[in-house]
Amino acid sequence: MFADTPEPPYTAVIFTSLRSDQGGEDYQQMAAVMEKLASEHDGFLGVESARDDNGLGITVSYWSSHAAAGVFRRNGQHLVAQRLGRERWYSRYVLRICRVDHAREYADPADGLTDGSSG
Amino acid sequence: MFADTPEPPYTAVIFTSLRSDQGGEDYQQMAAVMEKLASEHDGFLGVESARDDNGLGITVSYWSSHAAAGVFRRNGQHLVAQRLGRERWYSRYVLRICRVDHAREYADPADGLTDGSSG
Repeated sequence: MFADTPEPPYTAVIFTSLRSDQGGEDYQQMAAVMEKLASEHDGFLGVESARDDNGLGITVSYWSSHAAAGVFRRNGQHLVAQRLGRERWYSRYVLRICRVDHAREYADPADGLTDGSSG
Repeated sequence: MFADTPEPPYTAVIFTSLRSDQGGEDYQQMAAVMEKLASEHDGFLGVESARDDNGLGITVSYWSSHAAAGVFRRNGQHLVAQRLGRERWYSRYVLRICRVDHAREYADPADGLTDGSSG
């Protein structure tokens, strides 16, 4: 659930979205397909995602560079998903492309969590 | 629920966290106090937050600069909250400080959503 990112600098794409009242299983399926597609792209570092009960979601994908993130953003299958997102799944979203300058981490020693990968 | 941010560049602080099994109302209260405290700081632009049913949460706060975000990070009340977070509320977290370089937005015209403020 946590992305296992390297030392900065790298790129973060913050996608904040509000779900419409349309879609359900089709949305979940597309989200899974897009995460797999992203992970097959050069420069993909990981993704973190959470959605509230009120429909607001934040997904942050991490990339080696803005250019690497841009290749995925312009991928043909992804463009189709983006169009469906606007037509069907989201009533609003904001996309922000960022350069990560600093990062720090805390893990409860009692939990023995030392590895970022969890599936 | 969406932050009403200006044209880039500005600063985003991405806080990805996993809640422990401790705390409840005390955590909610502190989160509200910290959001108010942040909003009273110079350079605060807004905040977006979502937490999944599985306990993973992403909060992104937006600031005019890394320096403005740093003043809040070192605020005395905030330092107390950070310590309680490590001792009690979070089993793990990652904090990333980013420069937002590009942003774009979509809003369903049918929803008439043109204003970023929602409370």
